[in-house]
Amino acid sequence: MSAEADRSPGDGLLTTDAPVGATGPARAGLLPRALAGPLDEARGWMHTHAEQVPLDGLDGWAVDARTGCLRHRSGRFFAVEGLRVRRPGHPVPAWDQPIINQPETGILGLLLRRVDGEPQVLVQLKAEPGNCNGIQLSPTVQATRSNYQGVHGGSRVPYVEYFTAEAREQHHVLCDVRQSEQGAWFLRKRNRNIAVEVDPSVPVPVHDGFVWLPLRELLSLLAVDDLVNMDTRSVLACLPRELGHTGEASEGDLPPATSLHSTRSLLSWIVDVRESTEPQVERVALAELDGWRQGAWDLAHESGRFFRVIGVRVRAAGREVSQWSQPMIAPAHTGLVAFLVTRIDDVPHVLLHCRTEPGFVDTAELAPTVQCAPETYEVLPAELRPRYLDLVLDALSGDRSPVRFDAVLSEEGGRFHHARTRHVVLDAGQLAEGGGEVSEGPEHRWVSVHQISALLRHSHYVNMQARSLLVCLRAMDAMSAVDAMDAMSAVDAMDAVDAVDAVDAVAVREADGTRDDAAARPSAAPALAPALAPAATGAPGGPA
Amino acid sequence: MSAEADRSPGDGLLTTDAPVGATGPARAGLLPRALAGPLDEARGWMHTHAEQVPLDGLDGWAVDARTGCLRHRSGRFFAVEGLRVRRPGHPVPAWDQPIINQPETGILGLLLRRVDGEPQVLVQLKAEPGNCNGIQLSPTVQATRSNYQGVHGGSRVPYVEYFTAEAREQHHVLCDVRQSEQGAWFLRKRNRNIAVEVDPSVPVPVHDGFVWLPLRELLSLLAVDDLVNMDTRSVLACLPRELGHTGEASEGDLPPATSLHSTRSLLSWIVDVRESTEPQVERVALAELDGWRQGAWDLAHESGRFFRVIGVRVRAAGREVSQWSQPMIAPAHTGLVAFLVTRIDDVPHVLLHCRTEPGFVDTAELAPTVQCAPETYEVLPAELRPRYLDLVLDALSGDRSPVRFDAVLSEEGGRFHHARTRHVVLDAGQLAEGGGEVSEGPEHRWVSVHQISALLRHSHYVNMQARSLLVCLRAMDAMSAVDAMDAMSAVDAMDAVDAVDAVDAVAVREADGTRDDAAARPSAAPALAPALAPAATGAPGGPA
Repeated sequence: MSAEADRSPGDGLLTTDAPVGATGPARAGLLPRALAGPLDEARGWMHTHAEQVPLDGLDGWAVDARTGCLRHRSGRFFAVEGLRVRRPGHPVPAWDQPIINQPETGILGLLLRRVDGEPQVLVQLKAEPGNCNGIQLSPTVQATRSNYQGVHGGSRVPYVEYFTAEAREQHHVLCDVRQSEQGAWFLRKRNRNIAVEVDPSVPVPVHDGFVWLPLRELLSLLAVDDLVNMDTRSVLACLPRELGHTGEASEGDLPPATSLHSTRSLLSWIVDVRESTEPQVERVALAELDGWRQGAWDLAHESGRFFRVIGVRVRAAGREVSQWSQPMIAPAHTGLVAFLVTRIDDVPHVLLHCRTEPGFVDTAELAPTVQCAPETYEVLPAELRPRYLDLVLDALSGDRSPVRFDAVLSEEGGRFHHARTRHVVLDAGQLAEGGGEVSEGPEHRWVSVHQISALLRHSHYVNMQARSLLVCLRAMDAMSAVDAMDAMSAVDAMDAVDAVDAVDAVAVREADGTRDDAAARPSAAPALAPALAPAATGAPGGPA
Repeated sequence: MSAEADRSPGDGLLTTDAPVGATGPARAGLLPRALAGPLDEARGWMHTHAEQVPLDGLDGWAVDARTGCLRHRSGRFFAVEGLRVRRPGHPVPAWDQPIINQPETGILGLLLRRVDGEPQVLVQLKAEPGNCNGIQLSPTVQATRSNYQGVHGGSRVPYVEYFTAEAREQHHVLCDVRQSEQGAWFLRKRNRNIAVEVDPSVPVPVHDGFVWLPLRELLSLLAVDDLVNMDTRSVLACLPRELGHTGEASEGDLPPATSLHSTRSLLSWIVDVRESTEPQVERVALAELDGWRQGAWDLAHESGRFFRVIGVRVRAAGREVSQWSQPMIAPAHTGLVAFLVTRIDDVPHVLLHCRTEPGFVDTAELAPTVQCAPETYEVLPAELRPRYLDLVLDALSGDRSPVRFDAVLSEEGGRFHHARTRHVVLDAGQLAEGGGEVSEGPEHRWVSVHQISALLRHSHYVNMQARSLLVCLRAMDAMSAVDAMDAMSAVDAMDAVDAVDAVDAVAVREADGTRDDAAARPSAAPALAPALAPAATGAPGGPA
């Protein structure tokens, strides 16, 4: 949260306090009672209004004369810089783009406790200016260093005291690892993903806007559009697979029989891709970016594709700072990320793409099978389109029988404006039965879910989008548990009313021309199908 | 090897073809017969002469007008750039320095085979221009990408075909990981460390200047000064601990009982240090470096400390290219790296320093207990001197009873001129018995040797100097094996003559004022004491 007091109130051209979960009307009924009440209450005192303002009139921000980048006059927060990328041999061998440079690392901290042996997590209801629907579920602590050190004059970040070095000696650290964020939009961004389990004997005060939720319920809520925010998904992905198991032995690699490729071979493959795809990256002034047009209101690509850099003036209630201005990245399209999954020798595997992005610290990371904005590639011939993209799109627009998960989730609302990504999990076995060709390639390998979890103990291996889909897989597991529904409180009458409101809200936004892929989904189609039955699918054609 | 044809022959002001192992006369007797013959022969046809020339007269090199860095006019090879470092809270909170930027990754490839079950490695006899003694033992392949892709017009790099993606499918990859190099001298440098075991049925031709050596003999040769080069040490460190064991299970983490700290806790500590020490690094023109003086012959710090950037004109025989010019880094002093080691619950542990260096890709890596050039700190008060430095220096100048290993080894001779580092391993238990205080600190932790090996499967964890000392530990193990001496061929009369010559060579260089720390060591002191006896030492005071 870059923050700057802004005395012009400004009416919200882009209002961001629509109801939570509104975009997933068919699934609003999943909202548990423990959350529905606090959410409803929070809407009364917490909101953000983000009004688009001209980029050159952004209070406190200016293009630096020496470097040509857009930065805050204090030198803090972040900057929008220009990047020139060269990738010889790639279908797009060279391009220019703006990118966010935010050198300081933030904390994404999740507090856990056990009640009767069941893990619960403390989520924060948070309205970020870029959210398409107001409040989403954030980790307990989601703060940049400036933030929790009070640089912008705000009040102290609640619960940050549970994540200090001293506190970590007292409690049980479940994970603590710096992970990348979108390498196409962020230059070398890392956030510290940390989860701490407090001893049951330690009383934890619950501040306004915070809710303890059973972990399993939180996971189930991944099926609701735009509800569990990106930072929560990131840290959830880093939790050890077996929360109950604290022994070191479970954290290491499994015997080779359980994964198609040995971990040694996987690591060697990642090195290979990094070696062969390493881009040359050079910073240039924003004004020098080839193909980008600087207008009064935005910095946009001449084609209208990719994204725009816009400026917003924010008025907020229920946050440390009540007014500020900042640039944001506004994607041109809803993104699509897809996992092709299968069981190999009864072990769940995901077909991962070792993907190079210009903002990664170490060249390439494991990404979803497909990760793109499909509209960007509409005009390209098939051979230049991302591998498996058409297979995924065909499945989504066809009989949908291979679709195991389908929800639209939001990207981080502090930097990205209405950035939404459709998350899809597909059964590769069924795709193959339907005639789809699913095989490994130079940059795609079957990786077991166990291996992904082991790699997540380290930085630089699993990108944000893959982490997000990994949590969707866990949501499928949580939902397929026999007692999942019993564990979740039933929806009451008030929620049902919300669900009706939500349908109306979608209709309104469609009339506005606002993109909504969720609304385009057949409403009868389940967002969440039962997890892959162990015996139902085989290896889809096997590795290449 | 940056390479540029250079038609001026030039007499070597700095001659680099002194005999191998000459600086360790007391230990020249360790040279195995399998190596002594080929070495002697190679000296007849392989040499480099590096003559210092003015920096502004370096053929093919110039200061770039736009960036202010010294680079090759082709844009290839590497550049010497200026770096401005800010580390608030550090004893030295800000400094400027030149640094080598070499964006392309090289390969350090080691070929292994088994003869009667015993692993052998194919080493290359190689004379680098920066070597203080001519030929050293290099990995089978040691090449930048330009190198093995023939950018400089040289001939094809031998054996590179064993390390291609196709070859790696055929043979057994023992390790394959990109590792950092000196973060104080290299900006984000990575080399691919890869070892491949060829099937015994595959005949491997032995070209001139290559020698198959038993792995155990090669390890033993770490005790000989300036013989096993840095790149060989780097890739040896990345070999799995148990070469005979190819199962995945052995590669994961060990149960918690075997290490003082759990791996989870270690990783969390590394993240913590990275968060709290992350420097701000900015590139500036060489001419703008505060505290550095650009002379005709070098770029040097005003204090005379640290290092100089010099230019050399090289004439070479037995290499792909016979003449070229290049800049090099010439350190002002011999470095010192030390491991404090002990056994905790009978498991060997090393006291590692999580050390921040401005050139690291990810902020901080695990480094030796002590890593510095002691002379740099001579004028500083005790509280500003590196932790444990005085303890190590006292032990080295005292009765030496805690000293378990002591040899001077060379840094990479392609970029560094006469860069030598004294490698020392000390028994922490004996230091503690002698009254030394050995405890953990904010940036020091006891890490088991098993944990170091596990971390070495990944990038960004273990720095070059720690890898080098880890190989010294393995050398101690190899030497302490009961049959170590039997496995090694006895030295013959010719070698004894070499040893006498070597003593003379040292004397000559001392008369020249050339630094030689090896000569300063008491000649009676063993470079290599038996490895730590399991029961001899306990935890030295335990972790703080």
